[in-house]
Amino acid sequence: MKIDSDRSVLIIDLLATAFLGIEGGMAAVDAHLDLFGVMVLSFATALGGGVIRDLLIGDIPPAAIRSERYAISAFAGGLLAFSLYRTIEHVPPLFMTIVDAAGLGLFAVAGAIKALDHRIGPFMAVLMGTITGVGGGTTRDIFLAKVPAVLRVEVYAVAAMAGAAVLVVGVRYGRPRALMMFAGFFVCFLLRFIAVWQHWNLPRPAGP
Amino acid sequence: MKIDSDRSVLIIDLLATAFLGIEGGMAAVDAHLDLFGVMVLSFATALGGGVIRDLLIGDIPPAAIRSERYAISAFAGGLLAFSLYRTIEHVPPLFMTIVDAAGLGLFAVAGAIKALDHRIGPFMAVLMGTITGVGGGTTRDIFLAKVPAVLRVEVYAVAAMAGAAVLVVGVRYGRPRALMMFAGFFVCFLLRFIAVWQHWNLPRPAGP
Amino acid sequence: MKIDSDRSVLIIDLLATAFLGIEGGMAAVDAHLDLFGVMVLSFATALGGGVIRDLLIGDIPPAAIRSERYAISAFAGGLLAFSLYRTIEHVPPLFMTIVDAAGLGLFAVAGAIKALDHRIGPFMAVLMGTITGVGGGTTRDIFLAKVPAVLRVEVYAVAAMAGAAVLVVGVRYGRPRALMMFAGFFVCFLLRFIAVWQHWNLPRPAGP
Repeated sequence: MKIDSDRSVLIIDLLATAFLGIEGGMAAVDAHLDLFGVMVLSFATALGGGVIRDLLIGDIPPAAIRSERYAISAFAGGLLAFSLYRTIEHVPPLFMTIVDAAGLGLFAVAGAIKALDHRIGPFMAVLMGTITGVGGGTTRDIFLAKVPAVLRVEVYAVAAMAGAAVLVVGVRYGRPRALMMFAGFFVCFLLRFIAVWQHWNLPRPAGP
Repeated sequence: MKIDSDRSVLIIDLLATAFLGIEGGMAAVDAHLDLFGVMVLSFATALGGGVIRDLLIGDIPPAAIRSERYAISAFAGGLLAFSLYRTIEHVPPLFMTIVDAAGLGLFAVAGAIKALDHRIGPFMAVLMGTITGVGGGTTRDIFLAKVPAVLRVEVYAVAAMAGAAVLVVGVRYGRPRALMMFAGFFVCFLLRFIAVWQHWNLPRPAGP
Repeated sequence: MKIDSDRSVLIIDLLATAFLGIEGGMAAVDAHLDLFGVMVLSFATALGGGVIRDLLIGDIPPAAIRSERYAISAFAGGLLAFSLYRTIEHVPPLFMTIVDAAGLGLFAVAGAIKALDHRIGPFMAVLMGTITGVGGGTTRDIFLAKVPAVLRVEVYAVAAMAGAAVLVVGVRYGRPRALMMFAGFFVCFLLRFIAVWQHWNLPRPAGP
């Protein structure tokens, strides 16, 4: 979520944050929350994953608290959802899926690289990338007193994990960082997109 | 929640903690929890907001963990709720509303000033004040597997936010700290009190 | 959970982590989660208490993030639950109760001693031991959108608290550390075992 190098990367990052803020806000409207609830869910959905990752890797205060631009992006997304709910509802699902898959890939890759930069081992760095990708949606569902969707449906977390793994393994074997970030992003995006399109799901146990 | 200057401020702070501990304990009894559940909810309700704020601003271990007087105050409140449930139930609602609104104002103001002291920017400091005020009730509701009441009902969080904002803006423009803390407290208290009295609510979206 | 001294202690610790991973995985299968959900709940159940404790006492990144062996143990437990659900279901309850009570004692004692080592006061160290023991199950239940079982049933948390208290008081009065760790473990184990056997419960309030 927080890549500090390039200005264009920052803009993409803030756009992804705003988009996730819209998703959180839409879920809040669906649950009949008031304006404050819309704001909380837009913040939690967009920034929950990054905040949890930063607490776990020890980058405290978390980037999303240190700088206000992340919160402002998320809240802007929430306000959009609040005021334009009916319009956004009619956005074609294909567009939403593409942007959502792109956001997932961006967050997973940014989370994994940040963990590596904080000297977290490769195995746990993949986990941190996954948490960055799916932590926001999980936080949102806990606020809504629902079992997090990511634990039940479709290849969502696995796409994030695969993207983070591609990056971490590549960097580990000395491949160029920027190249591996793009490769990780692309693997995550593609997996997620195909999963929605083909209705892929993870295996479920036979029991209970 | 944790203003370290004055002895009288500390006493007010511990009284507010105990009062929120009572509220948490009452909710636990309502939910048929056992004695341990009562203790957990009194701790979560009274100290959850401050603990989350301290983790986010990087004051670790959180004040409520470093010093045991906060936990003891919260537990004392929980024990009171456990043993005197029927008596406390009959306390006039007006009294409960006044004390609750005062506690909200105190926590919001203390949380915002602490964030400023830890070099958190003004926008995020207002957010930290709000989290300090409403984080405890939110944590309690998550333990009870309910959608947090603060996301659905009445001008609760907004009062905390307004109080914190008055303080932060005032301090930013060089007004005396103690004066702005009192002003912030008073704005929060008044807004919350009038909101209960007049049944104010935040706007809700038309959808879905 | 993380005692750094002895190799045999580490092995016991990882075995306890794997066992709690199995418990978390079984709960995930019961809730019809997919493979990723099984992994998340095995991680949360086995390591949630220790991660929360480490965040609160300021040992960041938490031990369970810094070293990957804890996550691998928990995931191994989750995979076992996923692939051998029907077999594990038929393990005699007596065996499960004994191993679970032993794990509770181990975590409570390890959590309390770690808190003391981080200069947390005795009262809060007992609380940290309790959180280490019951935090994982609580996190698991929150993911499952249920009121945490530990808040409602049987003398579970109290056993952890008693074990941690025995250790903390003993160390405070200059008794040998290893001896008091064993004594704390034994008290927790015994209390928990007798509680299950005799169907002990904490007092519940008369109201509402």
